[in-house]
Amino acid sequence: MPSAGFSITIRIAAPADPTGVGRLTTAVGTAGGVVTALDVVDSDADRVVVDLTCDTADGPHADAVVASLRSLDEVEVRKVSDRTFLLHLGGKIEVTPKVNLRTRDELSRAYTPGVARVCRAIAENPDDARRLTIKRNTVAVVTDGSAVLGLGNLGPAAALPVMEGKAALFKRFAGVDAWPVCLDTQDSDEIVSIVKALAPVYGGINLEDIAAPRCFEIETRLRDELDIPVFHDDQHGTAIVVLAALTNALRVVGKDLKDVRIVVSGAGAAGTAIMKLLLAEGVGDIVACDRDGALHRGSQGLNPSMQWLAEHTNRDGYSGTLAGALAGSDVFIGVSAPNLLTGADIATMADRSIVFALANPDPEVDPREAREHAAVVATGRSDEPNQINNVLAFPGVFRGLLDAQAREFTLPMALAAAEAIANVVGADKVNPSVIVPSVFDPSVAPAVAAAVTEAARRTTA
Amino acid sequence: MPSAGFSITIRIAAPADPTGVGRLTTAVGTAGGVVTALDVVDSDADRVVVDLTCDTADGPHADAVVASLRSLDEVEVRKVSDRTFLLHLGGKIEVTPKVNLRTRDELSRAYTPGVARVCRAIAENPDDARRLTIKRNTVAVVTDGSAVLGLGNLGPAAALPVMEGKAALFKRFAGVDAWPVCLDTQDSDEIVSIVKALAPVYGGINLEDIAAPRCFEIETRLRDELDIPVFHDDQHGTAIVVLAALTNALRVVGKDLKDVRIVVSGAGAAGTAIMKLLLAEGVGDIVACDRDGALHRGSQGLNPSMQWLAEHTNRDGYSGTLAGALAGSDVFIGVSAPNLLTGADIATMADRSIVFALANPDPEVDPREAREHAAVVATGRSDEPNQINNVLAFPGVFRGLLDAQAREFTLPMALAAAEAIANVVGADKVNPSVIVPSVFDPSVAPAVAAAVTEAARRTTA
Repeated sequence: MPSAGFSITIRIAAPADPTGVGRLTTAVGTAGGVVTALDVVDSDADRVVVDLTCDTADGPHADAVVASLRSLDEVEVRKVSDRTFLLHLGGKIEVTPKVNLRTRDELSRAYTPGVARVCRAIAENPDDARRLTIKRNTVAVVTDGSAVLGLGNLGPAAALPVMEGKAALFKRFAGVDAWPVCLDTQDSDEIVSIVKALAPVYGGINLEDIAAPRCFEIETRLRDELDIPVFHDDQHGTAIVVLAALTNALRVVGKDLKDVRIVVSGAGAAGTAIMKLLLAEGVGDIVACDRDGALHRGSQGLNPSMQWLAEHTNRDGYSGTLAGALAGSDVFIGVSAPNLLTGADIATMADRSIVFALANPDPEVDPREAREHAAVVATGRSDEPNQINNVLAFPGVFRGLLDAQAREFTLPMALAAAEAIANVVGADKVNPSVIVPSVFDPSVAPAVAAAVTEAARRTTA
Repeated sequence: MPSAGFSITIRIAAPADPTGVGRLTTAVGTAGGVVTALDVVDSDADRVVVDLTCDTADGPHADAVVASLRSLDEVEVRKVSDRTFLLHLGGKIEVTPKVNLRTRDELSRAYTPGVARVCRAIAENPDDARRLTIKRNTVAVVTDGSAVLGLGNLGPAAALPVMEGKAALFKRFAGVDAWPVCLDTQDSDEIVSIVKALAPVYGGINLEDIAAPRCFEIETRLRDELDIPVFHDDQHGTAIVVLAALTNALRVVGKDLKDVRIVVSGAGAAGTAIMKLLLAEGVGDIVACDRDGALHRGSQGLNPSMQWLAEHTNRDGYSGTLAGALAGSDVFIGVSAPNLLTGADIATMADRSIVFALANPDPEVDPREAREHAAVVATGRSDEPNQINNVLAFPGVFRGLLDAQAREFTLPMALAAAEAIANVVGADKVNPSVIVPSVFDPSVAPAVAAAVTEAARRTTA
């Protein structure tokens, strides 16, 4: 499916006859591209030079669209620009002074000699760092590049475009200053000691795209050892948005979380955090599946976090395949791999079932097939209804943590954030196609921030 | 001496009689403050409320000024605000997106799914990180807080206001994005391994306010192990500006560097780097002094960098006091401690001597006394002529290093930068009071950047 993420701009010279430019757009359409803009760059009596911009589905498809244009008579393709790459040139964030440095007086206050007094004040009263420095509003986005999006272990340099994007989203949606920390090590001890050493500058740590199960150990140790909140977005951000979406989906189908049976596919960072949050909310029962089938008390060779899941889920001790687990279940939540299930599998679920197929970019089950049998279907895709997107959670969560000067991120905060997201969709607006707010809804981040701040107040009160 | 770095704003209610406000400014002046602004906030028939802003010399002086106001009849001091602290509230830099995130299409290109292709491109070709991420324009300002300004070992949190200020200066003077890295460790091995792990995000490392001799080892190891330039500003920035200033001072007095004898007080980070750069430029002779007097081949108990100095300076093997070393010397360069010398000491120097007394905020010798005997006097102070200020060097140096995509900072670059700074002051403009350009001269950073870029080209050619 063509998308803006794969948009290209092609500079083309074509004959200036009445059909010249029309043939171009037809050729793009025939090849499956979607023309989004056509700008004339130059012309004379015989020729016209245009910049044709079109969405394509992926790299090979873009090549096919260009080949289709090249095959036209008397048409010359001069240059193909990838709009996504153009946008990333030179990076996506910058560091901007908030103070003027035009005159000697301004320099004397912002830098030497005036700054010396500010340094001394912080040395005498360390809490002043939250008042007199960027610590008050600044979050580190920390990765080791071991699980970049769904692409795997690409390393720290290749992870940087994601972390920059995340930093841009933090500012755009919640006014938080976030900075990418891409570490050239995948050793847990080293990551923990580095993040501890970096902490003086930051009011919070957002762990990102660190592979499971290493991410669990790193997060647990940093939570114990730091006096600022630590939040692994792949775990807690995803879990919060899933719980919010599930809350509204259950409203649609008229079921209660305490009564439903949920099957989760994927026991990595996201799956584990989702299940822990659902257990905290008192879910009826959960069956966790990995690629070997359901986790149960008799499962062998599990890592510690999977062992914990095996002991705290699957009340009836089901051992078997994912598809088998689905029979009679009320909810499916997939955070695993593409195309594991068919519509026929969904058909075996209980009446008025809920399907969250969140593998990206290709869901666990084709959402069109799922919709034939389930009452509510959600995915991670932006071109389907009900997109489960972490950007609904992390900006507001950190806005709230920073505003509260919180020293840790807690379970009550996660539950409050999920409830706040769910409630942004008014009770009168919830329906099978609208269980989460739009990512562009400006009321989401403030609502989440307020809920987190309030939960922080309750905890410390 | 009152300065803008110690400026306070005092809200005062005074009688509305003809002398009411005049008494306020008189009281400030009598106490030695300098009134810089007087703004009426409120008034009625009997009273006037004003915000009186004035420069003071330091904290106790500010208290004295306020006490002088409080002692006036019928005058009420309501609030005293420290303008320097107000300026630092919430920190001095922010992280700003360079991309729009208003629509779904923009989100799809800057973040998922479009960003995945950019990540993959960098994973396949790591050099693309300098094209498609912030690495191209970004510098880490790294400290362990062990030698913050002249204040000593205040630790990483208290060092942050300086590093933020430095980052603001980087952007203001050279368009460089700089980010504070304040490390909560003072172990050299740990600092080296942390900076190596952080390096993927950065195109250069600026070490700052790290105590000698640890700073030498850290810098040497990072230079060996990183493929981006490493620059310790306290060493190389200071050395570059001192060499630039000395070049012009020697023009003023008509002496040649190859013939002069220089006494340097202070064998820490700055002093060592200054002497190494002067030796590379072929200085006649140098005598290095620390608090125990001159370093010479027979000196005992020296650390390795001081030992190196003892072996490469002090041609005549002078052993004795700093004041004794000065007799007959052409140049004094102090990067040590306040008030070590008097005018009488300066009087023992050779004819047409040069004095750089750079200890901050109080120079090694009172510049007014020095000027009675020396032909050229410079300090680190902004309220004296000839301020030796690193901001003349570091922004342009890193602009040049980033533009050249340099992998190291080299001696030829330092010499070229010093020459560029010296030459910004036209030959017809050099005089005893003008041996360096103004820090606000917009031609300095581009000239330094061009010199560094050109030196980089010569090295790799």
